[in-house]
Amino acid sequence: MKIVLDAMGGDHAPEVTVEGGVRVARSLGATVILVGREDAVQAALAKHDTAELDLPVVHAAEVVEMDEHHPARAVRSKKDSSMVVGLRLVHAGEADAFVSVGNTGGVLAGALFNLGRIKGVKRPALSTIFPTRKGHCLILDIGANADVKPAYLHQFAVMGAGYAEQVLGFENPRVGLVSNGEEPGKGSRLVQEAFELLAHSDLNFIGNVEGKDIPRGLADVIVTDGFTGNVIIKLSEGVAGMLMDVLEEEIRQRPLAMAGAALAKGAFGAVKGRLDYRKYGGAPLLGVDGVVIIGHGRSDATAVAKAIQVAHRAVKQNIVEVIRVGIAPSEL
Amino acid sequence: MKIVLDAMGGDHAPEVTVEGGVRVARSLGATVILVGREDAVQAALAKHDTAELDLPVVHAAEVVEMDEHHPARAVRSKKDSSMVVGLRLVHAGEADAFVSVGNTGGVLAGALFNLGRIKGVKRPALSTIFPTRKGHCLILDIGANADVKPAYLHQFAVMGAGYAEQVLGFENPRVGLVSNGEEPGKGSRLVQEAFELLAHSDLNFIGNVEGKDIPRGLADVIVTDGFTGNVIIKLSEGVAGMLMDVLEEEIRQRPLAMAGAALAKGAFGAVKGRLDYRKYGGAPLLGVDGVVIIGHGRSDATAVAKAIQVAHRAVKQNIVEVIRVGIAPSEL
Repeated sequence: MKIVLDAMGGDHAPEVTVEGGVRVARSLGATVILVGREDAVQAALAKHDTAELDLPVVHAAEVVEMDEHHPARAVRSKKDSSMVVGLRLVHAGEADAFVSVGNTGGVLAGALFNLGRIKGVKRPALSTIFPTRKGHCLILDIGANADVKPAYLHQFAVMGAGYAEQVLGFENPRVGLVSNGEEPGKGSRLVQEAFELLAHSDLNFIGNVEGKDIPRGLADVIVTDGFTGNVIIKLSEGVAGMLMDVLEEEIRQRPLAMAGAALAKGAFGAVKGRLDYRKYGGAPLLGVDGVVIIGHGRSDATAVAKAIQVAHRAVKQNIVEVIRVGIAPSEL
Repeated sequence: MKIVLDAMGGDHAPEVTVEGGVRVARSLGATVILVGREDAVQAALAKHDTAELDLPVVHAAEVVEMDEHHPARAVRSKKDSSMVVGLRLVHAGEADAFVSVGNTGGVLAGALFNLGRIKGVKRPALSTIFPTRKGHCLILDIGANADVKPAYLHQFAVMGAGYAEQVLGFENPRVGLVSNGEEPGKGSRLVQEAFELLAHSDLNFIGNVEGKDIPRGLADVIVTDGFTGNVIIKLSEGVAGMLMDVLEEEIRQRPLAMAGAALAKGAFGAVKGRLDYRKYGGAPLLGVDGVVIIGHGRSDATAVAKAIQVAHRAVKQNIVEVIRVGIAPSEL
C-alpha cells in the first residue's frame, strides 16, 4: 500500500510529519510517499534511520500555508504545492490515500478539485472524531457545507455510518441527528425533513440528539450541517479549555489546592489523555473519490503516525467502495 | 412594583418559589404576587414570617408541568394554569412583570398568546446568561425560533444589546454573530446576510464569533438562530459535565489524587460557583409585550429570588420601551 503524506502540512512541518511517516513505514511496512520541498524533507529524513524503509520523496515547490486567508484560492493557484501534487498522485492511481495535517480548507478544496466526488455523492463532508463519556463518536459535517439540504444530511449519515462501521469498528453504529429537542418533529424544517429520510432508511437511526447528548456518547455517528458541526467542535474545545483555565486559576490562588493538584496530577493527565485528539490522528473527508485523512494542524509525530494508520485502515477496508455502494440506493 | 411569580413552576415548586418570593418581598419591598394552587401556596407561605410583606396569592387551579410533551398545547388548554393566569395579570396591567422557573416552552407559548409581541418585533427570542472566561454574556435565541431570517437575527441583536446595556449593565455591549469562521463572508447564507445588516446597524457589532470565542467572552451579546443557540447551551452543559465526570472518575481511581482533590476542594467549589447558573437567576424572553423572566427548572430559592430581582431591574429600566424604540427604526 502506498500512502501520500503532505510533508509540509501542519504547524511543525516537515520535522514531525516526516517523523510520523518514518514510524509508520517501519511499523506497518507501508510505502509512505513524502511530498514537499525536497531539501527540507531530505534534511528531516536524514535525522532518522530509514534503511530498508520505503519512503520515497516527491518534490513540490510550493506550500499551502496554515494561515492562508483563502485556502481554496491558494490551492487553485499553487499547483505545485505538496497538497495538489500529493492529491494528484492519488487521482492518478499512483497512491492509495492522502494524509495531511495541513490547512483543512486547503485539503477540502484540493480534494474536491483533484479527486472529484464519488458518483452519486451530492456533497462531500468533513468529519472528526469527538471524545465522549465512554469513548468517541464521529461527527460530520464539521465545516465543508454551511448550507445543506435534507438529502445531503441523509448522505452524510450513510457515509458516516459506513466509515464508523468499517474503519472505526463500531458494530451497527447508532446514527443521531443534531436537533434542538429529542422528540421527532423537533428541529428546523431542514432537520425535520432529514429526520423523515433517516427514519425510513436502513441505518440504525436513533433519532434526534440534543447538544448535551453528544458528549454523553448517545450516538456513534452524529449528523449535522457544516455550520452547526463547526460550532459544535469549536465550542466544545472552547468550553473544555475555559473550564480547565478557570480551574487552574482557582487552584493557583490556594496553596493547599496547589499541593492537592500536584497529588492529583496523574488524574489530570489521564483526563487529558482521554480527551486527546492525537489518539485519533485524523478523520476522513468523506464522499471524495479517494481516501483523504485530515489531522489537526497541531499534530505531533504520534498524531501524524496515527493519521497515516487511519488512512491505511480506510484503504484496507475499501471505504471509497463502501460509500459508493451505500450511496447508490439513495440516488434512485 | 408588582411582580407575578409562577409559584407552581420548576422542579421544587411551590416550596422554593415561595421562599424566593418571600426573600425578594423582604429585600426589595416589592409586591410579589404568588400565582398557583392556593392551598399549596398558602402552606408554603406559612413556613415563613411574612408579616408586613406584600405577598398576595392568586389562585390558579392548573399547572403546566415540567415534562409536558406539548407545552404549547398544554398552555392553550390549561387556561386556569399559574402561567396563563399570571401572564394575564401582566397583560391586564395588574402586574409589571412575570417570572417563572417552570416549563420554558410553556412560558414561551403562554407569553406569545397572552402578551403578544411588541409592535414591530418579528419574532420574540429566548435568551440566557452564559458564563465566560471573564464573566458572562447574553446569548439569544436559544430555542424560540429554529428557522429564522436575517432580519430576525438583526432584531435579536437589537433586543439583546438593549437588555445587556440597560439591565445587565454592559456599556456599549459588543455584539457577535455566531458563524463557522471569523472572517466576514464566512457562514451560511443566512449568517452572511445577517452580517451585512448588523455591519450597517448602529450596534457595536464586532463581527462573526466562532464556537471557541463564546466561552472566551469575546462578545457581550451572542446572536444566533434558536436551533444553533439551543445546541450551544446544551452542548456547553454536556461538555462541562462530561469533563467533570471524567475527572472525578480518574481521581477516584487514585488514592493520592483523592487526597489531592480533598485539598483542592475550595478551588473546585470556586469553579462551580463561577459557572453557577443560579447566580444569574433568569433571562428574559425578549420581544413580547411585557417583562418575562425565565429561570432554570432546577432553581433553588436563591435562584428564584435572583430571577425576581432581574425582573425588578428590567421593569425599572423599562426594557419593553427600550426594545420598542430600538426596533422601530428597523421597521422602516
